[in-house]
Amino acid sequence: APEIGVGMLGYAFMGKAHTNAFKKIPYMVYPPPAIPKLVAICGRNEEAVREAAKRYGYQRYTTDWKDLIRDENIQLFDNGGPNDAHAEPSIAAAQAGKHILCEKPLARNAREAAQMLEAVEKTGVVHMVAHNYRFVPAIRLAYDLIRSGQLGEIYHFRAVYLQEWIMDPNFPFVWRLDKNVSGSGALGDLGSHIIDLARFLVGEPRKVSALAKTFIKQRPVPGGGTGEVTVDDAFVATVEFENGAIGTLEASRFCAGRKNHQVIEINGSKGTLVFNLERFNELEVFWKDEQPRETQGFHNVLVSESYHPFWKHWWPQGHIIGWEHTFVHEIAHLLDCIVNHKPVAPFGATFEDGYKNAVICDAILQSAEQEKTIYIRY
Amino acid sequence: APEIGVGMLGYAFMGKAHTNAFKKIPYMVYPPPAIPKLVAICGRNEEAVREAAKRYGYQRYTTDWKDLIRDENIQLFDNGGPNDAHAEPSIAAAQAGKHILCEKPLARNAREAAQMLEAVEKTGVVHMVAHNYRFVPAIRLAYDLIRSGQLGEIYHFRAVYLQEWIMDPNFPFVWRLDKNVSGSGALGDLGSHIIDLARFLVGEPRKVSALAKTFIKQRPVPGGGTGEVTVDDAFVATVEFENGAIGTLEASRFCAGRKNHQVIEINGSKGTLVFNLERFNELEVFWKDEQPRETQGFHNVLVSESYHPFWKHWWPQGHIIGWEHTFVHEIAHLLDCIVNHKPVAPFGATFEDGYKNAVICDAILQSAEQEKTIYIRY
Amino acid sequence: APEIGVGMLGYAFMGKAHTNAFKKIPYMVYPPPAIPKLVAICGRNEEAVREAAKRYGYQRYTTDWKDLIRDENIQLFDNGGPNDAHAEPSIAAAQAGKHILCEKPLARNAREAAQMLEAVEKTGVVHMVAHNYRFVPAIRLAYDLIRSGQLGEIYHFRAVYLQEWIMDPNFPFVWRLDKNVSGSGALGDLGSHIIDLARFLVGEPRKVSALAKTFIKQRPVPGGGTGEVTVDDAFVATVEFENGAIGTLEASRFCAGRKNHQVIEINGSKGTLVFNLERFNELEVFWKDEQPRETQGFHNVLVSESYHPFWKHWWPQGHIIGWEHTFVHEIAHLLDCIVNHKPVAPFGATFEDGYKNAVICDAILQSAEQEKTIYIRY
Amino acid sequence: APEIGVGMLGYAFMGKAHTNAFKKIPYMVYPPPAIPKLVAICGRNEEAVREAAKRYGYQRYTTDWKDLIRDENIQLFDNGGPNDAHAEPSIAAAQAGKHILCEKPLARNAREAAQMLEAVEKTGVVHMVAHNYRFVPAIRLAYDLIRSGQLGEIYHFRAVYLQEWIMDPNFPFVWRLDKNVSGSGALGDLGSHIIDLARFLVGEPRKVSALAKTFIKQRPVPGGGTGEVTVDDAFVATVEFENGAIGTLEASRFCAGRKNHQVIEINGSKGTLVFNLERFNELEVFWKDEQPRETQGFHNVLVSESYHPFWKHWWPQGHIIGWEHTFVHEIAHLLDCIVNHKPVAPFGATFEDGYKNAVICDAILQSAEQEKTIYIRY
Repeated sequence: APEIGVGMLGYAFMGKAHTNAFKKIPYMVYPPPAIPKLVAICGRNEEAVREAAKRYGYQRYTTDWKDLIRDENIQLFDNGGPNDAHAEPSIAAAQAGKHILCEKPLARNAREAAQMLEAVEKTGVVHMVAHNYRFVPAIRLAYDLIRSGQLGEIYHFRAVYLQEWIMDPNFPFVWRLDKNVSGSGALGDLGSHIIDLARFLVGEPRKVSALAKTFIKQRPVPGGGTGEVTVDDAFVATVEFENGAIGTLEASRFCAGRKNHQVIEINGSKGTLVFNLERFNELEVFWKDEQPRETQGFHNVLVSESYHPFWKHWWPQGHIIGWEHTFVHEIAHLLDCIVNHKPVAPFGATFEDGYKNAVICDAILQSAEQEKTIYIRY
Repeated sequence: APEIGVGMLGYAFMGKAHTNAFKKIPYMVYPPPAIPKLVAICGRNEEAVREAAKRYGYQRYTTDWKDLIRDENIQLFDNGGPNDAHAEPSIAAAQAGKHILCEKPLARNAREAAQMLEAVEKTGVVHMVAHNYRFVPAIRLAYDLIRSGQLGEIYHFRAVYLQEWIMDPNFPFVWRLDKNVSGSGALGDLGSHIIDLARFLVGEPRKVSALAKTFIKQRPVPGGGTGEVTVDDAFVATVEFENGAIGTLEASRFCAGRKNHQVIEINGSKGTLVFNLERFNELEVFWKDEQPRETQGFHNVLVSESYHPFWKHWWPQGHIIGWEHTFVHEIAHLLDCIVNHKPVAPFGATFEDGYKNAVICDAILQSAEQEKTIYIRY
Repeated sequence: APEIGVGMLGYAFMGKAHTNAFKKIPYMVYPPPAIPKLVAICGRNEEAVREAAKRYGYQRYTTDWKDLIRDENIQLFDNGGPNDAHAEPSIAAAQAGKHILCEKPLARNAREAAQMLEAVEKTGVVHMVAHNYRFVPAIRLAYDLIRSGQLGEIYHFRAVYLQEWIMDPNFPFVWRLDKNVSGSGALGDLGSHIIDLARFLVGEPRKVSALAKTFIKQRPVPGGGTGEVTVDDAFVATVEFENGAIGTLEASRFCAGRKNHQVIEINGSKGTLVFNLERFNELEVFWKDEQPRETQGFHNVLVSESYHPFWKHWWPQGHIIGWEHTFVHEIAHLLDCIVNHKPVAPFGATFEDGYKNAVICDAILQSAEQEKTIYIRY
Repeated sequence: APEIGVGMLGYAFMGKAHTNAFKKIPYMVYPPPAIPKLVAICGRNEEAVREAAKRYGYQRYTTDWKDLIRDENIQLFDNGGPNDAHAEPSIAAAQAGKHILCEKPLARNAREAAQMLEAVEKTGVVHMVAHNYRFVPAIRLAYDLIRSGQLGEIYHFRAVYLQEWIMDPNFPFVWRLDKNVSGSGALGDLGSHIIDLARFLVGEPRKVSALAKTFIKQRPVPGGGTGEVTVDDAFVATVEFENGAIGTLEASRFCAGRKNHQVIEINGSKGTLVFNLERFNELEVFWKDEQPRETQGFHNVLVSESYHPFWKHWWPQGHIIGWEHTFVHEIAHLLDCIVNHKPVAPFGATFEDGYKNAVICDAILQSAEQEKTIYIRY
């Protein structure tokens, strides 16, 4: 398999998750479409990035992302930096002809996302937004069931993505709480995931109405003083889709006990699907016309058979996989697209998906501010 | 215990459920606050109402509800008729000095509900709307935990009430699908229940934004022809409460596999509660600061201990009860209020609660039509 | 419908549960096979039994069970007394020509049970042991699925019945802990239920091997002193059935958190069934060859459709019922058998079932004592 | 960190799982105790083992396990071969001074296991049996809760390990069904896991009584003819522990829908623990004396907090891990023991544990054959 040189921006949470995928693909997605070569990793803290390069086996490190752009050994630019470091480096990478994997949300707002989309479309590089939940086996199975028509006409989509990690008023003022850096709060961080899944599974939304809320407005700044939280702690929205389905979207970081509670339910004319990220390997399925009717009920499908999506790479049935595996599937798909000139869509999210996602996020904030329904215009 | 003469309007679903409660109270809620005496039952189909009288042990039957109003042996008028038969008979009953139990929704709209409220307030009779889910042991436990402050400040309320029974396009045009009779569809039938629980558990809503949908617009009329469905098959709404909590409300009759799926989640600064009507005897509870932290997690509380609400009337722990028992608790409370001059509120829903509920239902429909946020004004 | 005079022995837990059924049958199992007439109730504490007669509406009370036997208005003798009060009164009732409903376990041991069986067979009265779990809708559905061959050849049966109510060492020495009165402990009280379900669902056991244990050997006697616990606190057993299936049986009153945890799993060549008494209205079903295979998984069947066993008597789907309803189904079946000369078996447990159950209980104790496999010989 | 040369016997299921762990440890268990160097891999099929070496990055391959023993670059001999290839190579490796990781069951019977134990004790090498479930975070948490006394005195242990993969009568005769190769069937393959967990969590068993069963006695041999299944398809056993606890053990490969259903419940005087391998990241915990009593119930603990066992190596809370991660924890522990001269026990299973496990397996088979209780004698 051909080698692809990788330049990684970011060495923390996403740097670790992506690098793990790069390292597992050669022997787990076998035969691999390409062999990732870990060329360089970049971060602002030199000591930390040096340690990360050593830990993960990157050939070199740098504290200047432009270094990555200039490096001719890098064909794939992986942007795992904070939201305000998505646009400029990604655009520069595109202009340098590098393929791009960018963490979500693609940008802080639709305007910025549009510029990124324009850049990749102009230069023709392969581009992908890391909406990794498209690569959960249970989600791909849901996609297959819906797209094949087995679920019938879609009536309802409801999704929540609930966490609890900033409930403590003493939780500090971090970049994710600063609109200048992050663009939005729970909306961009968690909401963008379920918006992506809504579009992936159901289709385009026509209109939204929403509320957003910041429960704790001042947070201590490490080192002293307080910072003003300028993003949403939570939002709730109604949505109508182009195909007539209606639904709700909600994200919050103030839900005690909800660790990583992304739950999606889709009701169609022929059945219902339910997914819970904390029970990653399961999909609940109800078939309306199943026989015998006496035993109709929600099927708890353990999505771990050899014939289930992505499962051929892994283990015998019931030997479950976890969150990190989504990145293996996602990046293997990206490498396959790069090497074999396949389209990233529809299985992967492109920058166009990232842009549309940003438009919807902006509409939700606008609806909350203006207290009216906002129609989605891409 | 004193006897209370009961006049029952309606002999079908609610007639059966209420009558069962009247008959069980004397030996299950022991000693009973009062002994219901089944004086008369009323319905439009003479043959059916005659049979119902015999079956349930009513002393007589009638096809004219005014008969019930005139009967001096009746102290409690129980209105289990269709929604368009709530206002006039209830107002007449109030004017005749009879106490009233009225099925939900109290009326087809807020204007009608206001007239009913005015009538009972003027005459001073005891009045209750049959929001029976306030009398689920797990819901009363939730109420106690919230009102005592154990859940802390409330951040979120989310509720769905999902059923599936009119998904089949051949399901006939029945009164519940005719706005003239029912006022609204899933909203008044199912939504009014979760609106009541929102108010009971969290408090007054400040504003709503909503979507409503009719998926199947024409239905066959038994006997020939089709009828136009003039009510919502489903609605979704966002809500903000006076106390700052935000939430979602949703009801639908188009959710395959959802038989009677009323699920409520409340997130507070100290914990979370979840209730699922299909698992009636359970309440999920998460305590944020519980020790030891290693075993924090959602408690699956089987609400069936002798010290749990209402449970002293029933069985040893784990010997579960069901849906019909809510009416036993509800009507025992009403009898206690009548006989012992106790207030129906806050444990029971009064006509004032029914009126406020109708205001919120109207606001949801208005928001859906006008595509803007509607502030609640009682 | 004809009237059947009932004489009830016992006014506590079982007296309440049976009487509730007698009172509900006339209007819930409609049209009823017979109308129970509550003629007399008997208990040893005169004050308590007088109060019970008043509460439940028995025409009279007595402290002498022979009074019930002599009363010609009584056609059905309902024995809800302690285990040592099963044999003599039931035999006397049989000899007096009365039909008999006897609580489980039928007797303290197989010898005693054999005498009871002999008595009813000699006199030809209708006889039933109150193994009420045969009348759970989900259990009857399981029975239908197995007996129709839909589950295929049965490989495994595993059942536990776990409670927690005597874990506290200060829990007093009550009759259930005294072998002279109760015959055995968890075995006869809880184990007899799962043994009955094993026979009902799978068939006759061929052999058992077992352990029994008394964790707390001395208990305080109310009023002073201690009593020696002479029965098992728990037992575990392996079982092989005549048809080749193998399984485990276990009961305990020392399982913290297990309130009424009767869980049964049956694996056949075509599928699997799982029942949990605390989730009374649900049955889990797996079909091995179901299509499409991608969505195979355990069905969570909410056994509450109009076409499910017993459900026509109750409510719309998802409006769940509870433990007490088993007695309504059970006693309605008994009345139907009495009035319409139908056999109690196989749906109801007869004294023959009670006798065989006692033989198996005895074999389990014998195996535990002798540390060897015991073959079942009826 | 020091390097440790690894020689791997077996390239299929366990070869893949172990190798994945060797490759992840250097960057996931950070800083790693040692860096595994993949020196050589051995298997009988040359083409397959050559491909495996390439896939996983072993420096060389061989079809002769003695090659691994002779190789001085190998310090750790990893035996992932079939059961009949455990004893001879492991004993040879011990004699060559190599540390050993051997897959379970350690041997085909206790006699063989005793020889292996003798060999490692004589040579002083570090030895471990790959009972990976000790390294599930939820299981280690259970261990901590029990060993710290938080669960109190242990009354009950019940464990099943159920699969379905040989239910089809056309499933071929493979080595696992041949007693000469495998020693036993479901017992050694699945039962040995739960026996290990019984000993790890509760302590030594005193006696067992058991049944074993072969449901399908002839299987097609690929290429023609049939082979006689000479091992158990399933077994059930009762067990009493030295500490007085009683329990059941069961394993089967004939349980439709049970993919990898290892479920363990432990009841103590202060609470209960339940683990289900298919819900790997969860532990159910009940605390008997928890306050407030109104919300007592089974806690569903998502064992994924930074302070939970092993979790510091992984992801934020709720970002779950899977089956393969047990090997990362297990082998990291082994490397730490080798490099830092720490004892493998009690967290890891030694050959002594493997031997005792084999004694118990033998006793179960003996009890099934002799139809009597067998006392455990190591």
